[in-house]
Amino acid sequence: MSSTRDIDALIEMMAKLPGLGPRSARRAVLHLIRKRALLLTPLADLMQTVAATARECLNCGNVGTSDICDICASEKRANGELCVVEDVADLWAMERAGVFKGRYHVLGGTLSALDAVGPEDLRIPKLVDRVTAENIAEVILALNATIDGQTTAHYIADQLEGSVKVTSLAQGVPIGGELDYLDDGTISAALKARRDV
Amino acid sequence: MSSTRDIDALIEMMAKLPGLGPRSARRAVLHLIRKRALLLTPLADLMQTVAATARECLNCGNVGTSDICDICASEKRANGELCVVEDVADLWAMERAGVFKGRYHVLGGTLSALDAVGPEDLRIPKLVDRVTAENIAEVILALNATIDGQTTAHYIADQLEGSVKVTSLAQGVPIGGELDYLDDGTISAALKARRDV
Repeated sequence: MSSTRDIDALIEMMAKLPGLGPRSARRAVLHLIRKRALLLTPLADLMQTVAATARECLNCGNVGTSDICDICASEKRANGELCVVEDVADLWAMERAGVFKGRYHVLGGTLSALDAVGPEDLRIPKLVDRVTAENIAEVILALNATIDGQTTAHYIADQLEGSVKVTSLAQGVPIGGELDYLDDGTISAALKARRDV
Repeated sequence: MSSTRDIDALIEMMAKLPGLGPRSARRAVLHLIRKRALLLTPLADLMQTVAATARECLNCGNVGTSDICDICASEKRANGELCVVEDVADLWAMERAGVFKGRYHVLGGTLSALDAVGPEDLRIPKLVDRVTAENIAEVILALNATIDGQTTAHYIADQLEGSVKVTSLAQGVPIGGELDYLDDGTISAALKARRDV
């Protein structure tokens, strides 16, 4: 490489981001250097601010800039519904859909025997505490439809059995989905959960 | 979005980078926030350093941290060969290949009637100056094999005609390439430029 040390180091670090490889990191860095006043300097400043202020919510695990996130702090969101998600990205996806008005609980992963992730590594004990502390009427399990996600959902449902109503997201044909392109598991789940029209 | 303003702004800015969209920007920012001590803070510092020091070489247009880049400053690279590339990314690609020992000239784009890019918008006048000033014996045109790239190559060849030897990269079957997957233009170019074995 003919570029100097800092530029190389920047490319190497950018290449570590998910979704970027060495080639796209080089392109991104060149783009940043070309627009350094417009993009690189503001981006660096913003990163510094976020690095200094971003933290996980002590209550639910969401990412925000205070110890208690905006959702946990809002009394309006205390409607007795608690949505359990694996990850902050899933919480953001739910919020973009804009239909859930309750609070969240971010597990921070799924149970996994292979990776030695047990209940105490996730926020499962905290979830059990919150159900009573926040007077929760319904826990909605919005975990990914993967084996690990569903194992975790079953475990949580077992833990909460008797103390609160536990539901999970419906499984079926996605909106806009074409049967011909769906996997057998989805079609089978959609058929089993068929509804009266 | 439930995250706060700075985090949203960071995601929005990251999504402007080539190769990243809104979804991958969100993933990247979450990853950065999770590893803020290890990744976000050093990345912000590095960006600030690069923003303060990076500049274009006044001679060739390469990106570096001084007014004259390392390659132009090195006497070893003054072997009378000058490689003309469209972009700094192309220069880096040539350097990775590690076979060219001369100096470069980065045009900063290609001639384009559609986008109203003329010779004076690129570094073509500077190229003509350098050929005499740096005692160049051979100009190697390493422009992309696109219509704009080849138009630019022809224009430069016309400008330099008589004053210096002008060559261009060979066109043909790429190493590891399978004929069945190559386009007709490449096969036709490779056939026309066939060599004795």
